[in-house]
Amino acid sequence: MKTQNKKKIVNDPVYGFINIPHSIVFDLIEHSYFQRLRRIRQLGMTELVYPGAVHSRFQHALGAMHLMTLAIEVLKQKGNAITDEEAEAACIAILLHDIGHGPFSHALESNIVSGVSHEQLSLLLMQQINSEFNNKLQLAIELFRGKYHKKFLHQLISSQLDMDRLDYLRRDSFFTGVSEGVVSSDRIIKMLEVHNDELVVEAKGIYSIEKFLIARRLMYWQVYLHKTVLSAELMLIQVLQRARTLIAEGLIVNCSDALYYFLSNSIAVKGNDMLLNFTRLDDTDIIHSLKLWSQHSDIVLSYLAGAIINRRLLKVQLQKESFDTEQLERLRKIASEKMNISASEAQQLVFTDVVSNNAYSYADDQIHILIHGKTIDIAQASDMLNHQVLSKTVTKNILCYPKEISGFV
Amino acid sequence: MKTQNKKKIVNDPVYGFINIPHSIVFDLIEHSYFQRLRRIRQLGMTELVYPGAVHSRFQHALGAMHLMTLAIEVLKQKGNAITDEEAEAACIAILLHDIGHGPFSHALESNIVSGVSHEQLSLLLMQQINSEFNNKLQLAIELFRGKYHKKFLHQLISSQLDMDRLDYLRRDSFFTGVSEGVVSSDRIIKMLEVHNDELVVEAKGIYSIEKFLIARRLMYWQVYLHKTVLSAELMLIQVLQRARTLIAEGLIVNCSDALYYFLSNSIAVKGNDMLLNFTRLDDTDIIHSLKLWSQHSDIVLSYLAGAIINRRLLKVQLQKESFDTEQLERLRKIASEKMNISASEAQQLVFTDVVSNNAYSYADDQIHILIHGKTIDIAQASDMLNHQVLSKTVTKNILCYPKEISGFV
Amino acid sequence: MKTQNKKKIVNDPVYGFINIPHSIVFDLIEHSYFQRLRRIRQLGMTELVYPGAVHSRFQHALGAMHLMTLAIEVLKQKGNAITDEEAEAACIAILLHDIGHGPFSHALESNIVSGVSHEQLSLLLMQQINSEFNNKLQLAIELFRGKYHKKFLHQLISSQLDMDRLDYLRRDSFFTGVSEGVVSSDRIIKMLEVHNDELVVEAKGIYSIEKFLIARRLMYWQVYLHKTVLSAELMLIQVLQRARTLIAEGLIVNCSDALYYFLSNSIAVKGNDMLLNFTRLDDTDIIHSLKLWSQHSDIVLSYLAGAIINRRLLKVQLQKESFDTEQLERLRKIASEKMNISASEAQQLVFTDVVSNNAYSYADDQIHILIHGKTIDIAQASDMLNHQVLSKTVTKNILCYPKEISGFV
Amino acid sequence: MKTQNKKKIVNDPVYGFINIPHSIVFDLIEHSYFQRLRRIRQLGMTELVYPGAVHSRFQHALGAMHLMTLAIEVLKQKGNAITDEEAEAACIAILLHDIGHGPFSHALESNIVSGVSHEQLSLLLMQQINSEFNNKLQLAIELFRGKYHKKFLHQLISSQLDMDRLDYLRRDSFFTGVSEGVVSSDRIIKMLEVHNDELVVEAKGIYSIEKFLIARRLMYWQVYLHKTVLSAELMLIQVLQRARTLIAEGLIVNCSDALYYFLSNSIAVKGNDMLLNFTRLDDTDIIHSLKLWSQHSDIVLSYLAGAIINRRLLKVQLQKESFDTEQLERLRKIASEKMNISASEAQQLVFTDVVSNNAYSYADDQIHILIHGKTIDIAQASDMLNHQVLSKTVTKNILCYPKEISGFV
Repeated sequence: MKTQNKKKIVNDPVYGFINIPHSIVFDLIEHSYFQRLRRIRQLGMTELVYPGAVHSRFQHALGAMHLMTLAIEVLKQKGNAITDEEAEAACIAILLHDIGHGPFSHALESNIVSGVSHEQLSLLLMQQINSEFNNKLQLAIELFRGKYHKKFLHQLISSQLDMDRLDYLRRDSFFTGVSEGVVSSDRIIKMLEVHNDELVVEAKGIYSIEKFLIARRLMYWQVYLHKTVLSAELMLIQVLQRARTLIAEGLIVNCSDALYYFLSNSIAVKGNDMLLNFTRLDDTDIIHSLKLWSQHSDIVLSYLAGAIINRRLLKVQLQKESFDTEQLERLRKIASEKMNISASEAQQLVFTDVVSNNAYSYADDQIHILIHGKTIDIAQASDMLNHQVLSKTVTKNILCYPKEISGFV
Repeated sequence: MKTQNKKKIVNDPVYGFINIPHSIVFDLIEHSYFQRLRRIRQLGMTELVYPGAVHSRFQHALGAMHLMTLAIEVLKQKGNAITDEEAEAACIAILLHDIGHGPFSHALESNIVSGVSHEQLSLLLMQQINSEFNNKLQLAIELFRGKYHKKFLHQLISSQLDMDRLDYLRRDSFFTGVSEGVVSSDRIIKMLEVHNDELVVEAKGIYSIEKFLIARRLMYWQVYLHKTVLSAELMLIQVLQRARTLIAEGLIVNCSDALYYFLSNSIAVKGNDMLLNFTRLDDTDIIHSLKLWSQHSDIVLSYLAGAIINRRLLKVQLQKESFDTEQLERLRKIASEKMNISASEAQQLVFTDVVSNNAYSYADDQIHILIHGKTIDIAQASDMLNHQVLSKTVTKNILCYPKEISGFV
Repeated sequence: MKTQNKKKIVNDPVYGFINIPHSIVFDLIEHSYFQRLRRIRQLGMTELVYPGAVHSRFQHALGAMHLMTLAIEVLKQKGNAITDEEAEAACIAILLHDIGHGPFSHALESNIVSGVSHEQLSLLLMQQINSEFNNKLQLAIELFRGKYHKKFLHQLISSQLDMDRLDYLRRDSFFTGVSEGVVSSDRIIKMLEVHNDELVVEAKGIYSIEKFLIARRLMYWQVYLHKTVLSAELMLIQVLQRARTLIAEGLIVNCSDALYYFLSNSIAVKGNDMLLNFTRLDDTDIIHSLKLWSQHSDIVLSYLAGAIINRRLLKVQLQKESFDTEQLERLRKIASEKMNISASEAQQLVFTDVVSNNAYSYADDQIHILIHGKTIDIAQASDMLNHQVLSKTVTKNILCYPKEISGFV
Repeated sequence: MKTQNKKKIVNDPVYGFINIPHSIVFDLIEHSYFQRLRRIRQLGMTELVYPGAVHSRFQHALGAMHLMTLAIEVLKQKGNAITDEEAEAACIAILLHDIGHGPFSHALESNIVSGVSHEQLSLLLMQQINSEFNNKLQLAIELFRGKYHKKFLHQLISSQLDMDRLDYLRRDSFFTGVSEGVVSSDRIIKMLEVHNDELVVEAKGIYSIEKFLIARRLMYWQVYLHKTVLSAELMLIQVLQRARTLIAEGLIVNCSDALYYFLSNSIAVKGNDMLLNFTRLDDTDIIHSLKLWSQHSDIVLSYLAGAIINRRLLKVQLQKESFDTEQLERLRKIASEKMNISASEAQQLVFTDVVSNNAYSYADDQIHILIHGKTIDIAQASDMLNHQVLSKTVTKNILCYPKEISGFV
């Protein structure tokens, strides 16, 4: 009997071709948990501003895995010992690093499964898959958790210069059409090296790293924290919150069983039941619910749901200072009158929030540059960039309100 | 009061920037019917083979509108009279040319609203929008229908070299990553001219047209008629057919109201009711149903639905000759035994069909080349291409069957 | 003592990075014969029409070598045995395949060293380098000459799908900006295979090959045989011929010693003396001479030389039929009167010639497609292309004449 | 009689197509002074490190002119008054801004025509062309000189964000293959605006400007000041200096008449004679001389000339501190012994120099950002970049020496 050829080539608009390097990688891609990522967009609501940004987490995971194979090849060519087993494990770990993402997780990460991060969910799902695969993912899980003795392998999966970031920055800029965000992943990977078991960048790569950091900054302000995207994401949080409230009040709120499971369980839920429901969720559960809810009798639910679906988003103001409470109350009162809703309903259509680039913090670890056999931090190696700025958490206050009252703001 | 600036610029991964040329175009984009196109993918199931191909009809419509503005500019520069009103109407017509597409319309065009083409639906919806817009779409509708006296304007909207085709070939090759399918829309547009009120191509563009035809052919065989894509599309048709049957039999089959409307009405339905339900349909209705159905007690429904969702597609054989009836019966019998299903159920898992590139027929009209003041058909102008082949309908027979019985085929 | 690192990476605008795969390749690149290729443009006079087309044969040779490393990798991955020694030899052979090109060899191949092709000169120079390199090029020379038993290795160097062609088509289209000529070298290389010791293309590559053939055709007619380029090339031939005549008549014609050697030796010269002088020639010898000659007292020499330098090229007419002798005589007479030159001088400013795409013949060998274990020719495998047209020699008659008499043609 | 169509389209690898917008621009391109730019490479010796970087100043001038037409279109669309005459003049001025460049002017600017900058030469040549064109270049010359009352038009020609810079950064990165240097000229141009008669950038363009500055910095250190390029350029200066010395000593040094004119006139020469000779110079004069000189009996002349031609460049050390005089003397002594040359000859093979990025100073004027109706400098607008670093002159000391003594350094 002929064995199935699993060394497939996948077409990818970003890199041209992606080779599936190991047959276990092929099998993991076929797993329904991984296939689910086809139905979860990488950038959620961003598509409402950048129509091209409809790429899925499925593509991103493949892309990051592709970069991993390139990085491992470069590091091996430079004389760093990496066994075939380690290479395979690194590919698996990066392939599955985002498997715990739920729908619209930019916005909803802490709203669907409260108190559980997507990294924790990824780990739980990897462990489950591991048992299905006779523990063949053991080393991959160790790498993912940073428990393996070769630290640089973990850094390829999770660090300032990990393959996740290199892929998503490049892919997101590609699909949004914000071509200035494009990162030369090729060039950065060619300049990776290992020094004292740490992933470092060769000295001549310093300008490329400067450019990487600037491109990333550009993507944050032009894409990830674009105010219209923020508006849509905050509305999504509000609408789910409203649904949760209505359910708690005993009202009928239609949605898929899996989503209902999470909306009707307000406390953090764990265990197999939760995980099972979680793996059934994807973007269509949300969109489908929004379409249903746009016809709901609850005015807040239907307003928000319809507004997202038809892209009649709340207006946004962004400022450094927090918004004045009195002004907020005044606006709510006007909304209440103009739109014929109660005071408490107005609170869900006129609200403030605080966003920071924390979610994408670049402060946690460092990019090390290798100069004459010593490593120094990019902040020291580069005299050009203001690294205080790069690492600083920028906090902005947001005020959202319906178009209907925009004359009063 | 400040007027809203409607001359927006949209980022597009294919063309970089798209300018919204007229304020009515901006208003049409904001219409919920047009926003619906965000939720309908251009290539439906193709994403199961080409993971990048998740682009929406929304993007495509914007892209085709962009090419229209370029084409009009070129034609005007060459001295052809086009009024501002005509230019605007041409932009509107191309923007809305696909507004009548439903979910997965590659596969489902005649399956959801039976007997009504997407062009007819587009026209119905345009007329409805027209009345909302105080008849400002009148000229656009005339152009769309080919009723306007300047024939070339209609040809920019619908012909062998229309802006629809130029955009979708380029966009589809871009997002699939099949870079060889890329068509130089820039170059072809630069070579457009009007002669005797017909859209023609200047003589020096002949090689570009040859390349366009070859690229198109490549896209058909490598993408549009890729056998795995065909398998998924045929499965989708089967699963909807099965749902329809079960509903007719009085069984409970959950899905959205809008979809249920079409599944429970077997005869062609028309009128406002139909149109209203149609405008509520998008890809998520289908995907959501498939997810529900994959848990259904009907074995055929759940098998097909689950198989699409988890990409465990039916195996496919393609051949020129029709498949032997006896072989088909034999395979169905094996399936029935192996999978513990009835004979009639086996018919929906083991089946044959016929596909042809008719759907994308290139025979209907011609590409005219302008040589020394006369126009001749590309088939004559080019000694290179075999135009019998280009215009011939290629018919292929398909056999689909479950993996479970692949050892017996 | 530290050994020099010869595994360099070269930046290339077409492919991004080119790795130098073997240290002998590095040493060959450093050889003055190879460095000479920096001063020989790939497309000679083409730059007068396509200003970007100033790329050198140096780049092309590196690019072809790069594709060779990719092709060998692909073939090895598919299980074809290729030793390290063979791989290195194939890289050397393709690197040096054009080393025998002289300046403007598109036009001048048979005019500088009459009766000796650039392939013969390449071989002579390879042999000379071989003796300098202690016979380390022996296998490369065997491959180059087609004397090695693994025929497919020669075909990678010289055949319808050799790495030379794949690089030059892609590179020429890149630098001319004729983006439609772009060939997907990546994709074609991925589809190469060896069957019965012959280089073949996998069946699924058939559309890519069709597109390759069409793109090549487009490049021929839009670039290589562009009539303005032809005019400049024919003028170059005429001006050298004129210089040769004047030298033969004993007049003083300044130019570099190396060029003078060839202009004053009318019969085919061979041996080391010729080779030494040949290796001193490059584009600057020609350009420098043209600049000098544009001040020469001989009216034909100065007219033609100045016209090339300042891009005041002869006008061109192209037609299938040969030009009428009487018309030619008439035009010469007018030129003689208008420009105050003798009848014989007029013959060098008003002349006809015949060009054919022979120089780039695609008839000599075949592209084989591997279908179900058998190879068939692309002409049979593809029902689409008219292969008679592809393989046919197209002959065109050219009439060149000075702008000064263009009112009389 | 049919008028010649001068609204040509030129293919350009960087922008695709370049339209010739005015017929006078066409005529200027045909002028022999402008055609001369075909024979002057934009980046001189850089091609020895980046083989693709053989693009000419001709292309760059066309490219900058193309960007000018785009910028003018954008500014007009935003409501800034620009007459057709001004638009034409701006195109002419940018087209001719580099017409005063001589061969290898990166290196040789002050060495061929000492004491005269290329801007002065450009002005002299423009004035000469102006009189040939019946003063039709008058306004263009005013713009070029900054004498016109609309200051922003001059800033499009010469400022921190002029079309010259936008084109050369993009073009140089394109041809070197240093893709990270790519500047989004499209995007920056879209964000240009005029405020108080000054060219400014809209607030939302701030991240693009940051990226522009970083990309520029990257190009400086990776390309323009690459140490191997510096080595070749310094050698070129030395070899011309040596030729000048030998000529002054009465020795025979062959080269073209035009070059001899400059080498034999040590003091600054002006007037028509100089200008005439200058317009005859191009890169081939230098390369041709180097080839001749590589056979010269003077050991320094032939060593340096041959070394450039065959790319056997002097070794380079770069450091912040100036080199120790004793070390220098020691090395010269060793060179003198090892290479059998005199002490004074050794001074031209072992030498130090100082380079700074002054030549490309970014300090002279500012980039203004328009925020809420006020302009502030980018240094204030961006909290990210260290503008002291950007504007600081970086000075480096260079030591060059022959490979032959590299063991002793």
